Amino acid sequence: MSFRYKIKIAYDGTNYFGWQVQPHHHTIQGEMETFLSEMVSQKVRLESSGRTDAGVHARGQVAHFDLEMPISNLSTFRRGLNAQLDSAIRVLTLERVSPSFHARFDAVGKEYRYFIYNGKILPPTKRFYRLHETRSLNLEQMQKAATLLMGEHDFAPFAANRKIPQESTVRTIYSFDLHKHGSDLTLRVRGNGFLYKMVRSLAGFLIDVGRGKLKPDDAKRILESGERTARVQTARPQGLFLWKVFY
Amino acid sequence: MSFRYKIKIAYDGTNYFGWQVQPHHHTIQGEMETFLSEMVSQKVRLESSGRTDAGVHARGQVAHFDLEMPISNLSTFRRGLNAQLDSAIRVLTLERVSPSFHARFDAVGKEYRYFIYNGKILPPTKRFYRLHETRSLNLEQMQKAATLLMGEHDFAPFAANRKIPQESTVRTIYSFDLHKHGSDLTLRVRGNGFLYKMVRSLAGFLIDVGRGKLKPDDAKRILESGERTARVQTARPQGLFLWKVFY
Repeated sequence: MSFRYKIKIAYDGTNYFGWQVQPHHHTIQGEMETFLSEMVSQKVRLESSGRTDAGVHARGQVAHFDLEMPISNLSTFRRGLNAQLDSAIRVLTLERVSPSFHARFDAVGKEYRYFIYNGKILPPTKRFYRLHETRSLNLEQMQKAATLLMGEHDFAPFAANRKIPQESTVRTIYSFDLHKHGSDLTLRVRGNGFLYKMVRSLAGFLIDVGRGKLKPDDAKRILESGERTARVQTARPQGLFLWKVFY
Repeated sequence: MSFRYKIKIAYDGTNYFGWQVQPHHHTIQGEMETFLSEMVSQKVRLESSGRTDAGVHARGQVAHFDLEMPISNLSTFRRGLNAQLDSAIRVLTLERVSPSFHARFDAVGKEYRYFIYNGKILPPTKRFYRLHETRSLNLEQMQKAATLLMGEHDFAPFAANRKIPQESTVRTIYSFDLHKHGSDLTLRVRGNGFLYKMVRSLAGFLIDVGRGKLKPDDAKRILESGERTARVQTARPQGLFLWKVFY
């Protein structure tokens, strides 16, 4: 018999090589599995809603793991884990779930937020948490392009070239909006799922539209082309937060 | 003949041992003097509006320096300096001033902001920029205490014990207010000057008032006592920003 737990995590991805365990690299998953395994004296493996790239942050990543023995006090366990983990990683919630729950397969949607600092000089205390764009951006054009990207499309042209045969690249974006507050511009995108580097590619495209290098209508043409081209830039990871996973 | 320049700087104090040059330590002043000196092939010494402690940040620190030769293009020079400096330090403005200008003696006031995260779990991306307080705080009591601290007082009881003989410890606080937005609580204090560790001591006192450990009226009693006692705690530097220097 095994006991399954759902864990919600926030992290600062600055000093990590992304979520997923990789040899010779410091990763969020690796750090968490090390301490979880120590606490329960058993090898623990985390299955997350999806990986995040190096430098990408999370406000609400979700994962699950199985234990041979149940946790007697969840909040004590969560606090104990936070006390041992690097303060760049915080366990927000921990709950027991049905053994049928799966952090990746049961996720029905995700929200990402991309924080852009659109001003001349990036404030030093924001340097790891904002994409810095000094050129002026036309927000109206960007919102037009974002709206054209909403709905169900084959997003292969907005994904990194790492195609897995027979895996669909069709995804649905439910909402995609921009919020400006002073020099801070936030892109908020919600969808049923995102391909590899898709959010960074969507952001890179929108920024090029904002700069006037591309037109909102190019969204249609790029989607129709069906393949990734140099027209779509991948924006840098600083500024990207996995905000929420929906179940 | 020499040429005097006024420089406004923002910095992330996390990885520095404060503003002031110290042997065997990495400091903001040291980092800046190194690159300034290299750029002008002359030993440059910076005189700031005042030091900041290790871990304290600045949004608008001001300093001046003298050169034997004038800078031909200020904005090119500023950009060149930023290109070489650690991105934790940014030069915001650079201007030529009268040789009679003095960054410290001419400052007529300063504003500090103290950012407190008043919630259970500190978001990882804010961990170097917030004081973390998990206990609930009574803001009304804190504002009462802050108001009692306004005006002209001998603030020796709110300074670290590093008394300089014959130097006055009387200062005037012009305004001291609290702003709450979600779990973020900001203390904003403006005055004609602040003693060593005074802002951190004022914040430590206000937090104890907010927790109910001290009463707002204790502000009066502590001021009247004339000396520093264990009743006043020095709050941690994370969360403190030198916001603005007034001339």
